[in-house]
Amino acid sequence: MSAGKIEIPKTMTAWVLGGVDELLKVEKPVPEPGPAQVLVKIDAVAICGTDIEVLLHGPPALIEGGPPFNKNFTMGHEYMGRVAKLGPGVDAFKVGDRVSVEIHAGCGQCERCREGMYTSCLNYGANYPGNDKGHRANGFTTDGGFAEFAINHVNTLAHVPDHISDEEATLIVTAGTAMYGLDVMSGLYAGKSIVIIGPGPIGLMAVAVAKALGADPVILTGTRDDRLEMGKKLGADYVINAKKEDPIQAVKKIYPKGVHYVMECSGATNALNEATQMIQRGARICLAAFPGEPYPVDLAYLVRNNVYMYAIRGEGNSATHRAASLISQKRINVKPLHTHTFPMDELPKAFKYARERIDNALKVVVVNKK
Amino acid sequence: MSAGKIEIPKTMTAWVLGGVDELLKVEKPVPEPGPAQVLVKIDAVAICGTDIEVLLHGPPALIEGGPPFNKNFTMGHEYMGRVAKLGPGVDAFKVGDRVSVEIHAGCGQCERCREGMYTSCLNYGANYPGNDKGHRANGFTTDGGFAEFAINHVNTLAHVPDHISDEEATLIVTAGTAMYGLDVMSGLYAGKSIVIIGPGPIGLMAVAVAKALGADPVILTGTRDDRLEMGKKLGADYVINAKKEDPIQAVKKIYPKGVHYVMECSGATNALNEATQMIQRGARICLAAFPGEPYPVDLAYLVRNNVYMYAIRGEGNSATHRAASLISQKRINVKPLHTHTFPMDELPKAFKYARERIDNALKVVVVNKK
Amino acid sequence: MSAGKIEIPKTMTAWVLGGVDELLKVEKPVPEPGPAQVLVKIDAVAICGTDIEVLLHGPPALIEGGPPFNKNFTMGHEYMGRVAKLGPGVDAFKVGDRVSVEIHAGCGQCERCREGMYTSCLNYGANYPGNDKGHRANGFTTDGGFAEFAINHVNTLAHVPDHISDEEATLIVTAGTAMYGLDVMSGLYAGKSIVIIGPGPIGLMAVAVAKALGADPVILTGTRDDRLEMGKKLGADYVINAKKEDPIQAVKKIYPKGVHYVMECSGATNALNEATQMIQRGARICLAAFPGEPYPVDLAYLVRNNVYMYAIRGEGNSATHRAASLISQKRINVKPLHTHTFPMDELPKAFKYARERIDNALKVVVVNKK
Amino acid sequence: MSAGKIEIPKTMTAWVLGGVDELLKVEKPVPEPGPAQVLVKIDAVAICGTDIEVLLHGPPALIEGGPPFNKNFTMGHEYMGRVAKLGPGVDAFKVGDRVSVEIHAGCGQCERCREGMYTSCLNYGANYPGNDKGHRANGFTTDGGFAEFAINHVNTLAHVPDHISDEEATLIVTAGTAMYGLDVMSGLYAGKSIVIIGPGPIGLMAVAVAKALGADPVILTGTRDDRLEMGKKLGADYVINAKKEDPIQAVKKIYPKGVHYVMECSGATNALNEATQMIQRGARICLAAFPGEPYPVDLAYLVRNNVYMYAIRGEGNSATHRAASLISQKRINVKPLHTHTFPMDELPKAFKYARERIDNALKVVVVNKK
Repeated sequence: MSAGKIEIPKTMTAWVLGGVDELLKVEKPVPEPGPAQVLVKIDAVAICGTDIEVLLHGPPALIEGGPPFNKNFTMGHEYMGRVAKLGPGVDAFKVGDRVSVEIHAGCGQCERCREGMYTSCLNYGANYPGNDKGHRANGFTTDGGFAEFAINHVNTLAHVPDHISDEEATLIVTAGTAMYGLDVMSGLYAGKSIVIIGPGPIGLMAVAVAKALGADPVILTGTRDDRLEMGKKLGADYVINAKKEDPIQAVKKIYPKGVHYVMECSGATNALNEATQMIQRGARICLAAFPGEPYPVDLAYLVRNNVYMYAIRGEGNSATHRAASLISQKRINVKPLHTHTFPMDELPKAFKYARERIDNALKVVVVNKK
Repeated sequence: MSAGKIEIPKTMTAWVLGGVDELLKVEKPVPEPGPAQVLVKIDAVAICGTDIEVLLHGPPALIEGGPPFNKNFTMGHEYMGRVAKLGPGVDAFKVGDRVSVEIHAGCGQCERCREGMYTSCLNYGANYPGNDKGHRANGFTTDGGFAEFAINHVNTLAHVPDHISDEEATLIVTAGTAMYGLDVMSGLYAGKSIVIIGPGPIGLMAVAVAKALGADPVILTGTRDDRLEMGKKLGADYVINAKKEDPIQAVKKIYPKGVHYVMECSGATNALNEATQMIQRGARICLAAFPGEPYPVDLAYLVRNNVYMYAIRGEGNSATHRAASLISQKRINVKPLHTHTFPMDELPKAFKYARERIDNALKVVVVNKK
Repeated sequence: MSAGKIEIPKTMTAWVLGGVDELLKVEKPVPEPGPAQVLVKIDAVAICGTDIEVLLHGPPALIEGGPPFNKNFTMGHEYMGRVAKLGPGVDAFKVGDRVSVEIHAGCGQCERCREGMYTSCLNYGANYPGNDKGHRANGFTTDGGFAEFAINHVNTLAHVPDHISDEEATLIVTAGTAMYGLDVMSGLYAGKSIVIIGPGPIGLMAVAVAKALGADPVILTGTRDDRLEMGKKLGADYVINAKKEDPIQAVKKIYPKGVHYVMECSGATNALNEATQMIQRGARICLAAFPGEPYPVDLAYLVRNNVYMYAIRGEGNSATHRAASLISQKRINVKPLHTHTFPMDELPKAFKYARERIDNALKVVVVNKK
Repeated sequence: MSAGKIEIPKTMTAWVLGGVDELLKVEKPVPEPGPAQVLVKIDAVAICGTDIEVLLHGPPALIEGGPPFNKNFTMGHEYMGRVAKLGPGVDAFKVGDRVSVEIHAGCGQCERCREGMYTSCLNYGANYPGNDKGHRANGFTTDGGFAEFAINHVNTLAHVPDHISDEEATLIVTAGTAMYGLDVMSGLYAGKSIVIIGPGPIGLMAVAVAKALGADPVILTGTRDDRLEMGKKLGADYVINAKKEDPIQAVKKIYPKGVHYVMECSGATNALNEATQMIQRGARICLAAFPGEPYPVDLAYLVRNNVYMYAIRGEGNSATHRAASLISQKRINVKPLHTHTFPMDELPKAFKYARERIDNALKVVVVNKK
């Protein structure tokens, strides 16, 4: 697996944000890994819905007083590749190792990082000259993967075994996010009922992870039959098309006493209110997505039923490592999510496919020539 | 403390719900304690805001298929008294023991009760002929304390030491509810910042409990200066009158990085949105109250900040016992909450004081002649 | 599955303890289920190592002041059957339902039960005339399964689907004990390393459950090759015969940095000390077995490595339900553990096989005629 | 509090280990703080029992392949002082701030650090040329406080308010260790019973912290009346002199059903076995000390009673910050522990007092001239 030395040029081709909805191909210096960092030769990158958001609106708000919008910024956070060079003090990886990445490396110094909640780092975004606490969010606050090389903190890397393809490996971080969402609700899923709302990539991975951990039944709700079919392939015991039947009634028919868990991955305005009607008293809800606008929520229902609601950001708790292990053990099959591959050179076309869901595109991956 | 034998008559005087906003004084048989139950001679009962709700609207919705509204129903759940008679198998208490009560005794059979979450019992309300699973909620689904005697499951009783007055002891369950809310957010408060929204009885008790557990600073927000002053007496380090200054800005001035915890006890429509603006990333929010109507909530803020939100019902996790201990150890002073005492005979007048906040009434207690 | 009415005679055949190492077949009245209880028509019972202990030494010490050794006592706690009659208030099961049982029903009243830790009930053994708190431990403090019928608290029952055989269903409680042990160490096993010491029934089930939850690698140590082979069938990634190689060195060769978890199921005198040498700093150890005598333990190693050690008794936390689900979902295969079946009439012969491991007996099951 | 600029010379006086039981005063360069580090001007250092161990035996075993015993090594880990210089990127402190320190800064990269368990860092000791992962343990694996200046990672610092004396502030880390021990057993102490074995500094601080968190009763056992008296001053409800009465019987007399928690801080050979006899079923034990030799432990008792045992090393979970808050809020009074002060120049004499308990010495503090 460790293919030995990887040649490192002085400069590399990278895609950077131009104006709104504009991707520019430029030549950039190959960066140098610092202490606890690794230079990764990028082999494959999946396009995430968030990438499309960033392309259209710029990166999400950073910490107050943070840096202005960077016109030389490279997006891309769902990537994998090979270790090309080790920074000082790194020995957990060898040059040539295949690795996938997670997005967040916390500052390691704030109260949240000291608790292990590095995706909720209080120094989010603080890694620029004048305020370098060391936080890094690949493709959000630091350069990401739509390039030939990228710097990564060692904490964000997970080994990828040979029997997992490059394209599959780009999906590890998505599976890790789904797993983190399941983590925060509970560690015990065997024999427990769960509804997953929204068959996007995170929702579909949540189906697969929940099933791998023994949840039963796993119920997936959505509005498109092809996605729901994919959910079945990934392990959903039941799927509900919310356009064809009332999802609350349908869940209650399958599991009359109300389910133990709901993981909301759709961002639909009424999803949380629907979730509160599907559950049993003392249930738990995870919000992995959210509507763009505030929406009336029936808080009374949450209080009367003693519901705990976990809103999550990112892929914390080293969940990516555990997801990588389930994929490696063939407990989760990520292959169905991957629908299209383009060369890195055709990134704008790849974005078009992802954005317009051309040809039922789900996960569109771009690859560098090896 | 154990004053020995207590005389038990065949019948007793009890207040029951009549029509809407009508309390009737009737003569009822003194009930007989069953296995794991105790007959309590009631000495004092505090009036809770929920009692006023029940008086005006009837008890909250019970489980589906539950019993119709019971016209012979006695309210009252914040009571204390002395053990008058033991049911079969009870030896944790002796006749004459002074006891306070908590509201909920779970069925002991459902999945939630087997997990220890008895206030979220899945058989809530199921203790009537035809569906007796043994769940009991004093003054909600079973007869409560506005009477001379009441039946209690042993699980709901806590010992009251001699140096705590009857009036103080009626407030133990309120302190227990506040403590349960703090429990579910975290066990570790020493040196952590907390905002408590709403200086009603639960909010004020939350101030006292949070301070007793070492929280620092404890910030209380409200709209009435007299209540905020009381909050200071109970341990608040800072109070904010939301009518006089913007509470979000005021909190940020006191604790610029945003607080660790918010406990919302006001039920104000915008309280949750305010809470989300007062906190740090990775904070936790407890909802102990809720607005009557659905209200637009900015879920994006919760997700972006990885916020866990715990909506609670009741006084679970044996928190009442721990609250009783803090009161007994003089770590919490509940006395300031108690403002008025009336004889049980004058219950309607006591309700009037509580409801109209006559003479700045906060906790109004009714007492039986001893 | 619900085969409808089951005939209930006045008396039944039951095996009871005679003198030491003596089992007597007697005729007993069929007991009557009380509130929250069910009468089970027993179909199959597995013999547990503890049964052999009880046969030779009498039941383990009960609470102080408990009842004397009962000469009419029926052992047997790993049983399954069909619901024959419902006690008052029970509707979670129907007559004819196939059910497996767990051992412990807590009193529901003590501090431990109120926390959900019913297998650690503080009223263990208190269910006899003069001290009936309602605790029940099937086959230990109440009559068990080596009979035609047995009473069970509803909390101890789990549904058994049709596609699981009677013999398999008797092993659910063993799988539940293994799962409880895994529960208390952590909820998160995906991609984590674990050593299981001792390939007895609980150790073998721990292998299967850990693997089902995604642990990797699962390493089993023991002294008999046939048992280790069975471990492989159940999911062990590596097996180590401690008679042929040093288990500490062998584990370190497989997982050089020391494993995350050890579950000790052997009861060997030096097992805990071995465990402490196999682990990484911050690891967790579960003791599911223990040596008969105190043995020198190197506590310094535990402290220096910040090790948490969980000694468990029983199958708490509703783990049996979750284990039943994994078995039902075919995530765990219990079949290899079952080696022999005898008719209930031949119980002494079945005990002989189990005790002397005749014909490599592992789990010996006795069955009633249907 | 921030006294502005602090003069930093090129060299400083420091005590270093010579041969066995030999402390040498030398002149050393003042070190330079790196990224995320701070130079501390040391004002006061308390002598810990571990310092005496190190003086006699050298530092405890480091990780395999670690550095040889360093003859220029400065001990001392219970120190406080003022921030003299900030390393790059540090803005959580200002020059002149009064600070106390905790011992451990984890590497921030290993699995344990990513979980927040930095005192159990898997790279313990790895901060020397050739293997610098960044772990630091003040006075153990890096130079400590018996000097004029010391380098500290920002994670180890906590603010000290003006109303806390230098001597008191040296005890914050001891209180933090006690609090960490209480943390790992449970977050909920109000009204719970606890026995603390061993009235050394950690045991006495455990008394104070447990009481501050609401434990009741707090029972302290030991062998010396003066220490037990001090325990009473710090909050113990009961003290037991194990030389004068059997501590197991004495605890059972005070709390007949057995206590909820035991924290063992004595290191006595039989302490764990005693602990197991003092507890109730389902209790938890923390080992904060250990005997020098393996000792026979009755594991059967732990298993039969479902006991969880937490062996701890250090002062993790940011407990030092919470302890500092309790001290700052006057919830804990550390003053009684401090018995003697010497100038830093007389360190060998101070060690003699600490070691031989001259004049009932408990915490002996050495101070630099300001």
